[in-house]
Amino acid sequence: MTKKYQLVGIGNALVDVLTHMDDDFLRAEGIGKGVMQLIGRDRAIELYGKVGPAIEVSGGSAANTVAGFAHLGGRCAYVGKVCDDQLGAIFAHDLRAQGADYETSPAPNGGAHETGRCIVIVTPDGERSMNTYLGVSEELHPDDIDEARMREAEWIYLEGYRFDGPDSHEAFARAIRATRSAGGKVAITLSDPFCIDRHRAAFARMLREDVDLLFCNRAEMISMYGTVDLEAALAQAAAEIDIVACTDSENGAHILSGGLRWHVPAVPTRIVDATGAGDLFAAAFLWGLTNGHDLETAGRMGCIAASEVISHIGARVEADLKGLFATHGISL
Amino acid sequence: MTKKYQLVGIGNALVDVLTHMDDDFLRAEGIGKGVMQLIGRDRAIELYGKVGPAIEVSGGSAANTVAGFAHLGGRCAYVGKVCDDQLGAIFAHDLRAQGADYETSPAPNGGAHETGRCIVIVTPDGERSMNTYLGVSEELHPDDIDEARMREAEWIYLEGYRFDGPDSHEAFARAIRATRSAGGKVAITLSDPFCIDRHRAAFARMLREDVDLLFCNRAEMISMYGTVDLEAALAQAAAEIDIVACTDSENGAHILSGGLRWHVPAVPTRIVDATGAGDLFAAAFLWGLTNGHDLETAGRMGCIAASEVISHIGARVEADLKGLFATHGISL
Repeated sequence: MTKKYQLVGIGNALVDVLTHMDDDFLRAEGIGKGVMQLIGRDRAIELYGKVGPAIEVSGGSAANTVAGFAHLGGRCAYVGKVCDDQLGAIFAHDLRAQGADYETSPAPNGGAHETGRCIVIVTPDGERSMNTYLGVSEELHPDDIDEARMREAEWIYLEGYRFDGPDSHEAFARAIRATRSAGGKVAITLSDPFCIDRHRAAFARMLREDVDLLFCNRAEMISMYGTVDLEAALAQAAAEIDIVACTDSENGAHILSGGLRWHVPAVPTRIVDATGAGDLFAAAFLWGLTNGHDLETAGRMGCIAASEVISHIGARVEADLKGLFATHGISL
Repeated sequence: MTKKYQLVGIGNALVDVLTHMDDDFLRAEGIGKGVMQLIGRDRAIELYGKVGPAIEVSGGSAANTVAGFAHLGGRCAYVGKVCDDQLGAIFAHDLRAQGADYETSPAPNGGAHETGRCIVIVTPDGERSMNTYLGVSEELHPDDIDEARMREAEWIYLEGYRFDGPDSHEAFARAIRATRSAGGKVAITLSDPFCIDRHRAAFARMLREDVDLLFCNRAEMISMYGTVDLEAALAQAAAEIDIVACTDSENGAHILSGGLRWHVPAVPTRIVDATGAGDLFAAAFLWGLTNGHDLETAGRMGCIAASEVISHIGARVEADLKGLFATHGISL
């Protein structure tokens, strides 16, 4: 029986505030380059006061993935918390306008927190350094997990970043139970190395027990398994997870499953803004997988989508991905 | 004596909501292509629900001009009304972060209207069709005109669009009186042909009596003077206004002053989003003028700045304009 959703993503609902600054600014502000750091509301206001003019684009890692999946015509939904404010309305609009379902009830306006946002500082090399004020996205509660919706999912996709927050582990556990009870599968992204440091034990248990598909990049893979090199980590991951998809920047991606292994080359492009590369890799990979393509082809789709999203500002896809797949000789 | 400001702009404070749709959508929605139409709050909500994913960028015609002037290092300020809400904070941040002063007190949050926004529909040819919900920008009142600030302005720059609204004519009159009383000069942009239709008599009187520098494009010039061709309109304008700067799309710009005339060629570029071309022409022209360059050079600067802003999404300048001037052989 066909399920209503091929993919349901769960994560931090954020609006990205994209601004261009140089490396001196990062140093002066003590901002770690190329990673995500959590900041409080006061620091968010202070930092915003220091950065240059910005543009606002809907973001959030899993939301970017769901938006990309919807762009490809996939049946999908998103779960994540915004506030009933202007930025929340922007986030909801952009996701629904892309064709995804989004029904998480917003937190009331006027409370201590607003819709979360991520101040993304893009340096001249296209690298992005993310400063995230989680706002109400941190308040995602187990009650926000609609179990009926989870049972209607072929795959759920869990954003590692959402492990930050008091009730999120229980929310994820509820989502996993409901999904599995109806024969659905579980994908996770490790999000970033610092996120792994904060939640190593929870991640390790989940990877062993609950995860069918792991997305991560080289640094995350090595951090997660505490190995000296990528090969050792890949071997450990492949031993406990059905499908492993590890991106490796300009080296493309490594896909491992059932004792087999594929290497997929990256698609060269001029990097304007690296935000969303991993998110869009996951979007296209999952779309390929749930639409009957083999793992290597899904990986190629992932690299094409990642290449598209880093060629422009913002972490949501702009060009016609299916057209790009065809350009690269993939028949749909 | 050096005045505090070289330029003070007055206009509608808007956040642009930029989205890509095709020409069929414009036809289905009855949206006039390439022009600005005013819409109410209900229509703004309805239309937003129909367009695709968007990005938010600070806009507003005169605000774009002031931001470009500040980018060039000019001393400038802006007057226009936002609400004390998230979009208002975004607008204020982007202007101040660019280096402009902006002190207009925001309208309190929770009233009937929010910060104004412009749903800009960009078609594949790069043309933009603007749907403006003025929100509180319409409430700019004569009391919002700080006469002391106007007396500190070498030039004030009035946005034609701001003629829409109950108290705006009086606000403009107050700004003009204060500026003139201290020896300052008055520039105006006609904004668009429909705007001229709505306020023809007020524009005509102001051009005759108060305006030292007129910015407009070909269609606006012909509409304003009701002539059969551009030449006849230019002749009439030049007879009553000290400086006339008329942009003419890919034909560049015509500058007329004191019985002399210059034609400045356009700078070819790939049009991605035509939003802000006229605004940035005015920014660079005024910067050249107030920094001692001759009118022809100011016109060339205007065409270079217009070319930069239409080569990317958004109506705020991104590249280093002074660097571009140098590339085109203009010594500063």
